Amino acid sequence: MQLPIVLDGSEKATLQNQIFDQIRSMIIRGQLKIGDPLPATRELSSQTGVSRNTAVLAYERLIAEGYVQTRPYVGTYVAATAPHTKYPSAVRCDFDSSEADRRSIVDESNDDHAAPPRIHSLVNRRRRRLIADFWVGRSDPNSFPLKAWSQLIWNRLKTAGAALTEYNDPAGLPELRQAIADHLGPARGVIAEPDQVVIVGGCQDGFNLLARLLVRPGSPAVVESPCYQGAAYVLESFGAQLYPVPVDHEGLDVAKLPQVEGAVAYVTPSHQYPTGVTLSLRRRIALLSWATEHGAYVVEDDYDSDFRFVGSPFTALKGLDRGERVIYMGTFSKCMGPGLRLGYVVLPRRLVDGANRLKTLMNNGQGWLEQAAMADFMASGGFGRHLRRIRQLYHSRRDALLAAMEKHFGACEVLGDQGGMHLAWRLPEGFPKASDVEARALDAGVGVYALAAGAAIHFGPDDESDRFLVLGFAALTEREIEAGVARLASALQGDRRPRDITAAMRSKQEAL
Amino acid sequence: MQLPIVLDGSEKATLQNQIFDQIRSMIIRGQLKIGDPLPATRELSSQTGVSRNTAVLAYERLIAEGYVQTRPYVGTYVAATAPHTKYPSAVRCDFDSSEADRRSIVDESNDDHAAPPRIHSLVNRRRRRLIADFWVGRSDPNSFPLKAWSQLIWNRLKTAGAALTEYNDPAGLPELRQAIADHLGPARGVIAEPDQVVIVGGCQDGFNLLARLLVRPGSPAVVESPCYQGAAYVLESFGAQLYPVPVDHEGLDVAKLPQVEGAVAYVTPSHQYPTGVTLSLRRRIALLSWATEHGAYVVEDDYDSDFRFVGSPFTALKGLDRGERVIYMGTFSKCMGPGLRLGYVVLPRRLVDGANRLKTLMNNGQGWLEQAAMADFMASGGFGRHLRRIRQLYHSRRDALLAAMEKHFGACEVLGDQGGMHLAWRLPEGFPKASDVEARALDAGVGVYALAAGAAIHFGPDDESDRFLVLGFAALTEREIEAGVARLASALQGDRRPRDITAAMRSKQEAL
Repeated sequence: MQLPIVLDGSEKATLQNQIFDQIRSMIIRGQLKIGDPLPATRELSSQTGVSRNTAVLAYERLIAEGYVQTRPYVGTYVAATAPHTKYPSAVRCDFDSSEADRRSIVDESNDDHAAPPRIHSLVNRRRRRLIADFWVGRSDPNSFPLKAWSQLIWNRLKTAGAALTEYNDPAGLPELRQAIADHLGPARGVIAEPDQVVIVGGCQDGFNLLARLLVRPGSPAVVESPCYQGAAYVLESFGAQLYPVPVDHEGLDVAKLPQVEGAVAYVTPSHQYPTGVTLSLRRRIALLSWATEHGAYVVEDDYDSDFRFVGSPFTALKGLDRGERVIYMGTFSKCMGPGLRLGYVVLPRRLVDGANRLKTLMNNGQGWLEQAAMADFMASGGFGRHLRRIRQLYHSRRDALLAAMEKHFGACEVLGDQGGMHLAWRLPEGFPKASDVEARALDAGVGVYALAAGAAIHFGPDDESDRFLVLGFAALTEREIEAGVARLASALQGDRRPRDITAAMRSKQEAL
Repeated sequence: MQLPIVLDGSEKATLQNQIFDQIRSMIIRGQLKIGDPLPATRELSSQTGVSRNTAVLAYERLIAEGYVQTRPYVGTYVAATAPHTKYPSAVRCDFDSSEADRRSIVDESNDDHAAPPRIHSLVNRRRRRLIADFWVGRSDPNSFPLKAWSQLIWNRLKTAGAALTEYNDPAGLPELRQAIADHLGPARGVIAEPDQVVIVGGCQDGFNLLARLLVRPGSPAVVESPCYQGAAYVLESFGAQLYPVPVDHEGLDVAKLPQVEGAVAYVTPSHQYPTGVTLSLRRRIALLSWATEHGAYVVEDDYDSDFRFVGSPFTALKGLDRGERVIYMGTFSKCMGPGLRLGYVVLPRRLVDGANRLKTLMNNGQGWLEQAAMADFMASGGFGRHLRRIRQLYHSRRDALLAAMEKHFGACEVLGDQGGMHLAWRLPEGFPKASDVEARALDAGVGVYALAAGAAIHFGPDDESDRFLVLGFAALTEREIEAGVARLASALQGDRRPRDITAAMRSKQEAL
């Protein structure tokens, strides 16, 4: 069997990516149907002239993203979870979460805008006292490309001209928007024109822009449960009616999406915040169908997808979005640093004008200098090299964390360790609640965090959410990681032995 | 003629406000159309039983807000400027074309947050074609202290450490807040602790911060008439009920402040935007008394008070504020450049916590690098020297503008020439309307602007506001100023001679 795959060595995309893209689009267009076999990698290799290894890697990515499956003695074939020519029509299902979970913010008094809003935890003020702080979302301070950055800033300042003394386009510097559009195609499968990109002052500014664009008092907003506080609180502050939808090992449980019209849905498909799980392809398709059917917009916050340690990065949800229902958000806070206050949103064309106007009304756009330096960093290839370097670094640190956890706690149930800058640990039975572990660890000089402290909110029952710790590893050296986990273990030992573990053992013995 | 007005003495709203509201909504709903007569105040008084004075006051407010006009021998009738859909009317932006795309989320009535907002004019897109552009609010590009600034940036980058890779205090860099507090005492008579200062991304970010802090749908907001668009549109976007109060040669006419509780009042006392007049001391005191009496907050936008050419700068309103009713706003956009996106608000102590929380929710604060450089510039004394240098420069340019105007147009009635970066010129009789002058000048390659184009809105009758031109002089050399005014004169000459001036002279002769 041969597939009509044509490779072009002169193209920018690697051969592996070309194979992936072409098979992927044959599946999406329905040229390959569920159950259809794919050629063996050996065949594909001899057909196209690529190395067998290249073919294997392309297939592994197709498998990882749920397009194809492989089974011993059967071979590789199009998976049942793969999309057809059109997204399968969404299964209608009633939203069954209890009324109590649903947060109703705008009601009687209309007092919302004056009451001080809830806000997310941004920094850990106790950090200085800690020997190791696994605070989530911190990038490595020593990996900031300071020398290259200083040079870029210096070059731009030399020729600044009127750029500092004039108002610039509130939607952002044209060359930065171009560089981002150029980056997103190969990196995330997102095809966008520069004018669909609006530069924002980090994700938080982006949340406000989108909430002001799409939310009115009482309008429905879907959030993940658990969810990043910073996004949920902004939606809340504009009077949205929140619909939390639970997250499991496949990501957002799409069967529980509310059957309401015109919602905005805030999701983190690549590396769910805080659990770290990746939204499966099947559910991505279902989410898009739901959005199309119900006139919803999906905000895809792709905050740390630059760091993928296992296989290739998933194509962004926005890359699958044919109905123009997805707004893609990226940030330079994770891959560069939050001190820049730079991020971006990529908008469906019909929202571009409104977003530009709002950005003007909100703050006339971002400062010129760092936008200009960032554009140069991206265009020169320096940004790509920087990403590769820190991806490697964070990979090692993740490995160090997993190794230390296994050494001190045995086999751990860990979520979200395939990418990103943090992972979630579901505490074993017999351990205290996560909030207790957090408190005890902080006393011992180690920062590990329950969901709430890690700037996440959980809308379900508390006892369930309080079984998770989140651990950021990107800003710590391997030595600090090992020392921190060791200290955590000894802090818990004193606690666990007498009260919890012994009690757990006793009750087990009694049960026998 | 009788209107269906029903007054209720037990209602909270005053009788005057009830009359105002009911006539206003008849106009908005189209029950009263352009040109329709209103009953004489005497009739209305006898119909409803209110005093004649109450009726007169209600009509005066309808006139001030542009709903109705009055003409001798004709009476009072619905003005051509009256809105038909919504207040404030003006031009709903061209976004209406995409009506079909607009998302219908909730019912029609609640439409404000989703409808694209009105926005201020930020840059003059035609600038490149002009020989001299008197656009308002531009600082001199060649006076940016580029060498000193580059050095400060470079020094900070060398020791940046984790400042770029960590979230900083959303309220701003402590040393910059300290430097601003230190500066404001001697420069503006404002005594504040650093923790009362919040760094914002320019005034526009500050307007949003304050509107979200103080405005709820329907809450009263006093604006000057004419007023800076950027501020009024933000208040409008959060659903404020605008109360425009006219400005005369002494500034805001405090006698016309609305007698409502809990308002926020946006004012520009040092150099009113756009007329340039300075609020008299007598009226400053009255404004503060009004705020204290009615629980209002006054937002003092002190955008260009660094430039005072005649006498000493006035103490800021905030410097007279003993009841903690004034919020002071400053910007580095005028004295440095808008490309920095840096400004600040100084808050009464009881608003500090709420503002800090909102700033976090809105955008996690401003970028680190330029805050740090600005703090160093201020602390080193370089900022003070820079201010003195450009104050001198702008002074000479103002003199050049006044001289050129006198040379080409004779004695001119000019407002706001004692300070700032622009002045307002009340066109003499016999001249075309300001908007016509603007159009003709642009054709001739000179940018001079009517109020609306200069990012100002006027809530009174159009014919009055269209007698003013605003001219920014800070960004032009003396040679450009002279050349621009000369060109303007010759462009108008061709127009004025035959049609206007000659006609005006003829009619004057006839009158003799």
